[in-house]
Amino acid sequence: MAKEVTGRSENYSQWYNDLVVKADLAEQSAVRGCMVIKPYGYAIWEKMQSVLDGMFKKTGVKNAYFPLFIPKSFLSREAEHVEGFAKECAVVTHHRLMTNPDGPGVVVDPTAKLEEELVVRPTSETIIWSTYKNWIHSWRDLPILCNQWCNVVRWEMRTRLFLRTAEFLWQEGHTAHATAEEAAAEAERMVGVYADFARNYMAMPVVVGHKSPGERFAGALDTLTIEAMMQDGKALQAGTSHFLGQNFAKSFDVTYTDKEGRQQYVWASSWGVSTRLMGALIMAHGDDNGLVLPPALAPIQVVMVPIYKSEEERSAVLEKMQELKKALEAGGHSVEIDDRDTLRPGFKFAEWELKGVPVRLAMGPRDLQNGTVEVHRRDTLEKVTEPLEGLDGRIVDLLDDIQKNIYKKAFDFRETQVRKVDSWDEFKEEIEKGGFLLCHWDGTAETEAKIQEETKATIRCIPVDSFVCEEEGKCVYTGKPSHRRVIFARSY
Amino acid sequence: MAKEVTGRSENYSQWYNDLVVKADLAEQSAVRGCMVIKPYGYAIWEKMQSVLDGMFKKTGVKNAYFPLFIPKSFLSREAEHVEGFAKECAVVTHHRLMTNPDGPGVVVDPTAKLEEELVVRPTSETIIWSTYKNWIHSWRDLPILCNQWCNVVRWEMRTRLFLRTAEFLWQEGHTAHATAEEAAAEAERMVGVYADFARNYMAMPVVVGHKSPGERFAGALDTLTIEAMMQDGKALQAGTSHFLGQNFAKSFDVTYTDKEGRQQYVWASSWGVSTRLMGALIMAHGDDNGLVLPPALAPIQVVMVPIYKSEEERSAVLEKMQELKKALEAGGHSVEIDDRDTLRPGFKFAEWELKGVPVRLAMGPRDLQNGTVEVHRRDTLEKVTEPLEGLDGRIVDLLDDIQKNIYKKAFDFRETQVRKVDSWDEFKEEIEKGGFLLCHWDGTAETEAKIQEETKATIRCIPVDSFVCEEEGKCVYTGKPSHRRVIFARSY
Repeated sequence: MAKEVTGRSENYSQWYNDLVVKADLAEQSAVRGCMVIKPYGYAIWEKMQSVLDGMFKKTGVKNAYFPLFIPKSFLSREAEHVEGFAKECAVVTHHRLMTNPDGPGVVVDPTAKLEEELVVRPTSETIIWSTYKNWIHSWRDLPILCNQWCNVVRWEMRTRLFLRTAEFLWQEGHTAHATAEEAAAEAERMVGVYADFARNYMAMPVVVGHKSPGERFAGALDTLTIEAMMQDGKALQAGTSHFLGQNFAKSFDVTYTDKEGRQQYVWASSWGVSTRLMGALIMAHGDDNGLVLPPALAPIQVVMVPIYKSEEERSAVLEKMQELKKALEAGGHSVEIDDRDTLRPGFKFAEWELKGVPVRLAMGPRDLQNGTVEVHRRDTLEKVTEPLEGLDGRIVDLLDDIQKNIYKKAFDFRETQVRKVDSWDEFKEEIEKGGFLLCHWDGTAETEAKIQEETKATIRCIPVDSFVCEEEGKCVYTGKPSHRRVIFARSY
Repeated sequence: MAKEVTGRSENYSQWYNDLVVKADLAEQSAVRGCMVIKPYGYAIWEKMQSVLDGMFKKTGVKNAYFPLFIPKSFLSREAEHVEGFAKECAVVTHHRLMTNPDGPGVVVDPTAKLEEELVVRPTSETIIWSTYKNWIHSWRDLPILCNQWCNVVRWEMRTRLFLRTAEFLWQEGHTAHATAEEAAAEAERMVGVYADFARNYMAMPVVVGHKSPGERFAGALDTLTIEAMMQDGKALQAGTSHFLGQNFAKSFDVTYTDKEGRQQYVWASSWGVSTRLMGALIMAHGDDNGLVLPPALAPIQVVMVPIYKSEEERSAVLEKMQELKKALEAGGHSVEIDDRDTLRPGFKFAEWELKGVPVRLAMGPRDLQNGTVEVHRRDTLEKVTEPLEGLDGRIVDLLDDIQKNIYKKAFDFRETQVRKVDSWDEFKEEIEKGGFLLCHWDGTAETEAKIQEETKATIRCIPVDSFVCEEEGKCVYTGKPSHRRVIFARSY
């Protein structure tokens, strides 16, 4: 191996950290809890952005941009929201530094204190609804479907690259509607977009469901989520979509005149996914050799490594590779020829495996002679020698097959990790093994809290797809009656 | 007119403000100096981003992401940089709010004071070079060509939408090279990309040149700029590219081992354009009816307005329009049919003129009968009736013609506003009329400062294209010898 990665079975958490850093995805910065997203990692994020952005726009959403800063007082307008978000955040108190009068460097200028402190946005409901007040007057102004791609900051005590960082990148959609039904439908539509993206691009078999009231977004009447399963059997919340009712409209006094001339409060949804998706992608598919990227999101889909001894051989092989590259690029595929002259092929193989490139082609003088090429697929690590003729068409099929296979592998794994549990003793035993436990729950926050306290497991969601959960039963903890199972799991 | 816009000749500054707000591009937010970029404005910015991003990547640049926050001490590492950027910036001093013990709302938690204050990035040289230190060891690691699209904050006292805001969006490229020549060439290459973009997409005839030492970026050895002329004869700096020498490498101790095994400091360039380009675009081409958008950057290139009385007429016209829309979209053009039922066509015409849509098509029942359509071009406000047959091909040509014409108009205007001035009395008179004054300058900072003090004019650049400036002469202010003319102007 080019760079040693800890084995998954040895230390899953260390394996993840190694992968992020050694595959050149991200690293810690000099600022506590803030990461640097390196070019290779950012290229994956750009692909995610581009696909999601297109999906949003197809539903009529438009992008906009709202301020980074939120006046402190805005956060306390919505009672629950302030509890959820005002606690750990970056607070700007001054607007000037000055030369240190007592030594080297610069110090905060005490005369430049802000009248009202500003908070670096942890999420933008408040600043956006204060803006929507000016945009919305009549039913003709509705719906408003805005999204922004931006950075947000939540002062986390314990951070992990991509999974939980003080600053992260995300998109946040904020929509305004005339009726509760429309806003709720929007929240559902967008969680559907996330599920589609997770399944068909990220190759992750996510479960769509409602959060329990205790796990809802601060200020929401309903939170929908997509929950993914990682290879250690833990759940990862990969995206959420909220029906906000009229809470923010009331806090910021946003009303519209309906067709009958009456003043009505506006209804809202908001929804977001973040660079956390990068963490999910890594943990869902990676193996002990490194990343395994689904072709739909791989910045490089096909890498070619030339094998040669002489300069003559080198140029003959590279010429053939250029030809193949052109053919594949014409079909919209991203291809890289690794013609670095200072590294051995074996080193390159390991490096591209580490970086999760779906298909690797190797070609040497003998291949040229025979009209063949060695084709290696990252997902199964299988290697076959194939005729060059018609290769570009077969590569396209292969990428498609890899995409499907990565999904299937994750799906099959999840199937082995989901089980119905009906007694508390069994629950305590099973939760130690990881996975999703489908259990009855009496619907109370008290029971939810006690289960978490005793086992660190939370209700990941009340599924609306993936599993048949509607059935009569008894709460796994209290034995009280229940009408459906929910998913309990430990989570990231 | 749908919404009144102040005439340019009446009050140019008010005209600009009106246009930004009434064409739905941006507005002031609840946070001092921070703007909200509205969907229509953001769609233009997205087009700019997309074109520029493609141009950057073609030169080998890759995107990455670096932290929003910079430790206070980083800013003072580079002596000039701290002077330029540490003064007016947003300073984060605390990381928590708490419920106000003495009343309603939240207050800063005094126990959550940061050990070292963080500054919201005004530009990212310092945090990026502190990162590059870990990325660069040998000559094999060079060059590094990174760009990031992000937000930055500079606490400006007087702000104007797009032109000068406390928070703005931009891209900043930061490159690291083994030699001075390579770094300087990169700075030149990127100002060339900016000039290409400004001329061929924004339709602005910019001048490329060097900044005088006094106007350089804080910490740069050379700053290249593209300077555009606005319709009031003032200059607008639309993009800059800096050769940074080894200043940041030395401040952050970034060295590499060269091929001979010697330790060398790394050479740097940085370059950026911002949402200020939006201001330039508006001011360069707009007229008293509103925006005039170059087709290459217009979010909607063709708008169609149906004319009808009966529902029958409406659906017949709309059907025809759908057909035409499909044909144009197949060619990659963006088309919108304005089928809003509650507004008169005249109102719609004015609104789309205000929003600067390059081509407007109107079609009524008589047009349907005659097989014609009314074609209106935004740049000249000309209206002609044309046969429907073969229209999509002619629209493509028309868009191309509009793009060229907008450039030509701006170019011709600039030509009327550029003049050689050789005496100080003439200078003082001519500068009042606006425009670019090509003058000899003795090369000293003192003279530059005095000219600015007396006339508010600055050296916009020492041109490397657009005008022939190499000639012997005498400084317009001191009469001392000079070898080339430079551009003096008042500016935004």
